[in-house]
Amino acid sequence: MATPFDFQMMARAITLAKKGRFTTAPNPNVGCVIAQGEEVVGEGFHFRAGEPHAEVHALRMAGERAQGATAYVTLEPCSHFGRTPPCALGLIDAKVAKVVCAMRDPNPQVAGKGIDMLRQAGIEVEVGVLEQEAYQLNRGFFKRMESGMPFVQLKMAASLDGQSALANGQSQWITSPPARRDVQQFRAQAGAILSTQKTVSDDDASLTVRWHELPQSIQAQYQQQDLRQPVRVILDRQAKLSPQLKLFQTQGEILVVGEKGDISASLGPNGQISLSALFAELAKAHNIQHIWVEAGASLASSLLQEQLVDELIIYLAPKLMGGDSRGIFAGLGLTKMTEVPELEFQDVRQVGADIRIIATPKTR
Amino acid sequence: MATPFDFQMMARAITLAKKGRFTTAPNPNVGCVIAQGEEVVGEGFHFRAGEPHAEVHALRMAGERAQGATAYVTLEPCSHFGRTPPCALGLIDAKVAKVVCAMRDPNPQVAGKGIDMLRQAGIEVEVGVLEQEAYQLNRGFFKRMESGMPFVQLKMAASLDGQSALANGQSQWITSPPARRDVQQFRAQAGAILSTQKTVSDDDASLTVRWHELPQSIQAQYQQQDLRQPVRVILDRQAKLSPQLKLFQTQGEILVVGEKGDISASLGPNGQISLSALFAELAKAHNIQHIWVEAGASLASSLLQEQLVDELIIYLAPKLMGGDSRGIFAGLGLTKMTEVPELEFQDVRQVGADIRIIATPKTR
Repeated sequence: MATPFDFQMMARAITLAKKGRFTTAPNPNVGCVIAQGEEVVGEGFHFRAGEPHAEVHALRMAGERAQGATAYVTLEPCSHFGRTPPCALGLIDAKVAKVVCAMRDPNPQVAGKGIDMLRQAGIEVEVGVLEQEAYQLNRGFFKRMESGMPFVQLKMAASLDGQSALANGQSQWITSPPARRDVQQFRAQAGAILSTQKTVSDDDASLTVRWHELPQSIQAQYQQQDLRQPVRVILDRQAKLSPQLKLFQTQGEILVVGEKGDISASLGPNGQISLSALFAELAKAHNIQHIWVEAGASLASSLLQEQLVDELIIYLAPKLMGGDSRGIFAGLGLTKMTEVPELEFQDVRQVGADIRIIATPKTR
Repeated sequence: MATPFDFQMMARAITLAKKGRFTTAPNPNVGCVIAQGEEVVGEGFHFRAGEPHAEVHALRMAGERAQGATAYVTLEPCSHFGRTPPCALGLIDAKVAKVVCAMRDPNPQVAGKGIDMLRQAGIEVEVGVLEQEAYQLNRGFFKRMESGMPFVQLKMAASLDGQSALANGQSQWITSPPARRDVQQFRAQAGAILSTQKTVSDDDASLTVRWHELPQSIQAQYQQQDLRQPVRVILDRQAKLSPQLKLFQTQGEILVVGEKGDISASLGPNGQISLSALFAELAKAHNIQHIWVEAGASLASSLLQEQLVDELIIYLAPKLMGGDSRGIFAGLGLTKMTEVPELEFQDVRQVGADIRIIATPKTR
């Protein structure tokens, strides 16, 4: 049975894990705390793929004091030799007495092996402390593992009456600068940013992470030199993207989706892009497990109708644009209230002058 | 200089005043606390027009202990003989030593007279403790006093993407039962509920306050026998209201606005209803100082464009209805982002499954 102290230590390990959220992709965020009695003797988190895992940092810090200690890890320690040796082995070598894991590794080819390795070495193992919280750390990593599909966040910005542009297309700016800075931290956590040729061309958007626009609280733990640019994936069926666009003048990888683009496997016989096929391909061939979507009403509606949205992040500005403006979604063709897609509000807060709402679609 | 104790007592008086918010219309909400040293010896609030003012209740409770005490009142005590004798006189007769008022009576014909009467009797008077909070108690009363116009709240219910009905008109129900119960408490505080023939006919809405639907916290302090039905004001230019409607089967006063209705003075030569003329008439001839509007996109847009909305109360449901549904506002004909009506968010909270946002238009 987990004690209050165990929960406290695991919460600390989760907080540590989060420090890697801008840099570890496509690796998961993992944190580790080593306690000797009630004293923390080591802690660490995974910072970047190819660099040491959380357990290694914590064990290094603990040194000989790891002997007989309890290690708290937010994910089952790995059991395989990859770019680094298996962490389960490291914990065994350090002679820890007990390992508490928040959750098993959901990868069916790995699940339980790290735990078995520890138990076979005579180490007591407990699993399931703050499991939900640990799962939230790596929604993209786990979703791809479980379903082969990436975790998809759809970002929208609208007036309080749900409009995203005036009838003539004017839309800059609906939301306030703090809301636009807030978007930067979401971009920075994604593996890819998805948009369309139309949105990129209309706004001449670079779709990059700009370190100096991140909230100060994040700048304090995420150095400019560590900036990782998500891959920009642009739907451009008709090859209309101009090389003059700011998109192409900025650093970072770009994948154009279209017959003449970098990805064409997801195109149907009529040249239509199959979004689900594209996402599966991005996950499989490009290691992308977390997509941040910034686009217009048409792509947003398609994603919604194909049930490809895991989370909706909507910024509502204190403005009214009227029913003759352009809505954030295109027509959904609904004729009954019982058909209306339902959401659950997860988080509502004020960001600058705007309100940010995070909602998840209810599964039907 | 007001002391922390003074603020504490005035806050208590304000809390008391609020207990009358469902019943005092068209009188203001007023609360009074009498303290002898640091001991509260009397308190009271105004409950209903024609019944004793707050000061009378508090003085009765204090009895002889009012002598030498300090009275805290949320509004300058009245100085005129109305349905009750002037409260300033009551305070003088009771020999209180000091009176602290949150604010002066803004009625230019009264302002300061109550205070003068007290001072002339040798009572120390302090004005301006928690003035803003006291003002908020009676926004309708003060607005009519200052401008001759009622305070107007516009209620709307929409999906997260700003739609209030499907293309075919279906709309029941967008919001959850807790949100609809929340509406009841707003209705109960208004002097009038404004709607249109179309809304009333489409929904067969009674637009009454239903005591059993009020939140329990309110039922606890507001007895069913004290239920006051706001006047229902229905715009019906073409006299289409059917006598079969639930509206006419329920208790409470109804004023139909239209050539053949109860109010026709606010009709223009072409039969158009002038909303500002109507509101002025409701304030002047019908003693209405607080209007709660429940109507469709067309009336909402007119009120917005004529700058007649003081407060917007919008319930957003966790649903997406799509751009082919009906928006909460009709077209506003905007062509520049700088023309977009701006709001300020005052309060954002979850009500059942929905979000309730209270916003006020920014004055330009």
